[in-house]
Amino acid sequence: MQGRDIRRGVDVAKKPTWVVDKERAKRASAAETLWLFGLHAVRDALANPAREKLRLVLTRNAADRLGEACWQDAGLEPELADPRRFPVPLDPGSVHQGAALEVKPLDWGSVESRCIAGPGRPLVVLLDRVTDPHNVGAILRSAEVFGARAVVATARHSAPETGALAKTASGALERQPYLRVRNLADTMEELRAAGFTILGLAGEADSELEPALGTLPEGQAVALVLGAEGPGLRERTRDTCDQLVKIPFAGEFGSLNVSNAAAVSLYAAARKFS
Amino acid sequence: MQGRDIRRGVDVAKKPTWVVDKERAKRASAAETLWLFGLHAVRDALANPAREKLRLVLTRNAADRLGEACWQDAGLEPELADPRRFPVPLDPGSVHQGAALEVKPLDWGSVESRCIAGPGRPLVVLLDRVTDPHNVGAILRSAEVFGARAVVATARHSAPETGALAKTASGALERQPYLRVRNLADTMEELRAAGFTILGLAGEADSELEPALGTLPEGQAVALVLGAEGPGLRERTRDTCDQLVKIPFAGEFGSLNVSNAAAVSLYAAARKFS
Repeated sequence: MQGRDIRRGVDVAKKPTWVVDKERAKRASAAETLWLFGLHAVRDALANPAREKLRLVLTRNAADRLGEACWQDAGLEPELADPRRFPVPLDPGSVHQGAALEVKPLDWGSVESRCIAGPGRPLVVLLDRVTDPHNVGAILRSAEVFGARAVVATARHSAPETGALAKTASGALERQPYLRVRNLADTMEELRAAGFTILGLAGEADSELEPALGTLPEGQAVALVLGAEGPGLRERTRDTCDQLVKIPFAGEFGSLNVSNAAAVSLYAAARKFS
Repeated sequence: MQGRDIRRGVDVAKKPTWVVDKERAKRASAAETLWLFGLHAVRDALANPAREKLRLVLTRNAADRLGEACWQDAGLEPELADPRRFPVPLDPGSVHQGAALEVKPLDWGSVESRCIAGPGRPLVVLLDRVTDPHNVGAILRSAEVFGARAVVATARHSAPETGALAKTASGALERQPYLRVRNLADTMEELRAAGFTILGLAGEADSELEPALGTLPEGQAVALVLGAEGPGLRERTRDTCDQLVKIPFAGEFGSLNVSNAAAVSLYAAARKFS
């Protein structure tokens, strides 16, 4: 019954479908866990107080290499496993080095708290549907090295937090904010309203990255937007940029891998803050 | 019999073992073939006149997407394959997109002809035991984009030319010289004698990349040396550099993926030639 007083209570069955779906998705996401693997990724996750840890599985050898302090500080007791029958559901070919840790995904909070008000340089990377976990992992490493506040990706059609991403990120996943947003263009508008200049990387742009950065005042907040290889930036993403820029090429052939394009543009942008 | 006249012929059995081994390795290497896969890698290999092509296997769909001109120009007739039983020995998980091409490895010639006298900017990348094919593939792309003459790796303990490398290189393997040398330090000496300045990338270096490049005269030939993640540059490689330099970091944690470090240093070095 429409207009019914909310204080009298609302019949659960009367909730609109989209509310029910949203609540269900939220419950599913809270229940969701993932397995991190590899000595480096497991060690850095154990050392991260913000990381909710559920199970630690180690071979005797991996336990020796990590050292007791590693899991004692995290308040976790390892389950020792036979290296020949490693009892963790990992993709074939995952180089786990005898170490796996079941965890909950990290909650990095809002764009407001991480990108606009967070610590570090006023520099963020926005990823428009970059789905390859190895690329996103490498981008998190570069973002950390060059002091970017956060990497922001779309909630859908982007690489989720997985063991493979964590392994490629080589520890950076625990330290470098990786936010997923529902709508990238809305986030771009939010950043622009907060004073960011939004530069979209596009091979066919007329302007080059470095001269475009050169026109900005010292210390100007910058968001770098990169798309997936092939499709590039979607139309609305492209239209929402302040400027499209390219990394200069020597020849007529070739293109950079997306994580390499991110590293080069982060490097060029970070020089503005040094 | 020592000192025997070479014109009378030498008994094969009398050849020293190392000569026999070397000849055998050479024959094996000449017989060696590899399977390239994926539409992009196959298309670019077909378009490369220097590439010796043996067999082309395509699904009907891949044949339609590539187009007849692609293999007719290469003088090759495709074998049509059932996508459900793709008859090519590829690693599981290889995203072949219904296209595979059996080829011989490319012969890029000597350091002299490619690095010292070759076309392009006097800029080369030397890789000290970088074994991951995805990293080497991405480095070939960056080297092409920034106009480096060649990427040079050690013959042993480096990523060989494979389908996986070709796929990550996204066509750059066909165009960007990738040389394998027996001894990296000897090649470094050869380049130095030819006027190159040899800069080794090392996280613990005192000097930074950009100021080091800044001290060089305009147009100075530069070789950038990168090691594998973890071990870094070997001792002799390190000792043979003119200078060790680092990419500046914002914080105390983290490190760049090796292909990202290569992209950033190629970008910084290429700016010297623009």
